[in-house]
Amino acid sequence: MTDRPPHDALRPQAAAWFAALRDRLCAAFTAIEAEAGSDARFLATPWRRPTADGSDGGGGEMRLLRGRVFEKLGVNVSTVSGSFAPEFRAQIPGAAEDPRFWASGISLVAHMANPKVPAAHFNTRMLVTTQGWFGGGGDLTPMRPETAESREDASAFHAALRDACDRHDPDHYPRFKAWCDRYFFLPHRGEPRGAGGIFFDHLAGPDPAADFAFVRDVGEAFLEVFPRIVRTRMAAPFTPEDREHQLIRRGRYVEFNLLHDRGTLFGLKTGGNIEAILMSLPPEARWP
Amino acid sequence: MTDRPPHDALRPQAAAWFAALRDRLCAAFTAIEAEAGSDARFLATPWRRPTADGSDGGGGEMRLLRGRVFEKLGVNVSTVSGSFAPEFRAQIPGAAEDPRFWASGISLVAHMANPKVPAAHFNTRMLVTTQGWFGGGGDLTPMRPETAESREDASAFHAALRDACDRHDPDHYPRFKAWCDRYFFLPHRGEPRGAGGIFFDHLAGPDPAADFAFVRDVGEAFLEVFPRIVRTRMAAPFTPEDREHQLIRRGRYVEFNLLHDRGTLFGLKTGGNIEAILMSLPPEARWP
Repeated sequence: MTDRPPHDALRPQAAAWFAALRDRLCAAFTAIEAEAGSDARFLATPWRRPTADGSDGGGGEMRLLRGRVFEKLGVNVSTVSGSFAPEFRAQIPGAAEDPRFWASGISLVAHMANPKVPAAHFNTRMLVTTQGWFGGGGDLTPMRPETAESREDASAFHAALRDACDRHDPDHYPRFKAWCDRYFFLPHRGEPRGAGGIFFDHLAGPDPAADFAFVRDVGEAFLEVFPRIVRTRMAAPFTPEDREHQLIRRGRYVEFNLLHDRGTLFGLKTGGNIEAILMSLPPEARWP
Repeated sequence: MTDRPPHDALRPQAAAWFAALRDRLCAAFTAIEAEAGSDARFLATPWRRPTADGSDGGGGEMRLLRGRVFEKLGVNVSTVSGSFAPEFRAQIPGAAEDPRFWASGISLVAHMANPKVPAAHFNTRMLVTTQGWFGGGGDLTPMRPETAESREDASAFHAALRDACDRHDPDHYPRFKAWCDRYFFLPHRGEPRGAGGIFFDHLAGPDPAADFAFVRDVGEAFLEVFPRIVRTRMAAPFTPEDREHQLIRRGRYVEFNLLHDRGTLFGLKTGGNIEAILMSLPPEARWP
């Protein structure tokens, strides 16, 4: 066990953090629904990761809320372990030496009923092979990024993430913002998915506890800023044209997730839970 | 020029056939719209294939009809030529020797307003590199494949394609039907896209004129059978539940096209016309 990464010792805390953050996020979102006069609740679907030999592969819980403010809000936590199939080992740091892995994380996608409220995505995770690292990020997708309101929302979102980054490393925000801009881009359309945010992967600084503290702060920042943006915009009036435009923008979101999102494609190829992976797809989309 | 495939000589006829078939298909579909009391017409958008050096790369025409029976019907013809980029040469028969290509074809996707009418896809094409071949196929996607009506439609569709195949080669139908079943399958869902049909590629028999005659017969078969199926079902009553179910099945169609369809992915990677390639996506889809 001497060749195990120090992240091994963080596994219980990491899994507990992702679950606790999930509970706080869900509470924040149902509170918003209540403010809008809705008693919408999350529907929870636990799932187990199937393994070829019947061993315990872990599992997760998908929570889905269909409400008045959140047209479709999916929050998934999972803690899984197993062995990477031979064809994936070369792509995963530390898996060529030993294919066993452990992974825990939270992911969230919010598609909003009101087109004036931006959609949002957030996820953070810890991976352990013979190496250990953190990954994650959050990004905002206003339907009309060019409006003053959308620029204000994007600015608030970026400010919150920048503060979280700056508390840990002055290089984090510029690096992770640029990574997000590169990642959430539709090359076939020549357009970004939205207004960006931050994206990071294979984060493995000298002290895993410090990386974990950063990841927790990213979660806290999202928990503070996204509900704030939602509350600012949820009562904004909108037209049928705004709704139609939102549904077309959601089509682009589908294109990104199915054509380009590495997480989605990797999940589908490695036999992850289909419903949890495709939870990110919008409730309704149009290609007129 | 002695090393050119015999398909070279067929280029003008092939391009003319695809365009003529397009006109007949469009006429058949607008006739159906008229029978339903609609004067919906195709909107035609010509496009040119951009080339790095400004040379003539050919182009095509996308025709889109949004009608009462056909909620979204896209028909595209194109005749393009150029050179395959180095990264694609190994995948294309005959392109390793000389990267130049010529391609002409027709493709069609029909998403229906009435959930009791199956969606359909059809395409045929001729490719010329230092080799020449035909490809194409057609497949039917009933929304509820298990009903008696859907089985009747699938049976009529398969019978028409089988007749076309059998007139040319007794091996064609069983081989191309099985190929279609393998191809139009969603591995992440473990389910077929629809009720199948035929699919073939790299068809290069001893006599290209005979292959071309087969491809024409496949077009004639589709032109005869699909409008017939549409007329049988277009007035069928349906419920809001049928419509909701149709929108969810269309979500699966999107998943197939963006995750698995080689034609879509190849087109996007090789800088094809985005709107023409994504014309296949449904006007509206749901992931509730």
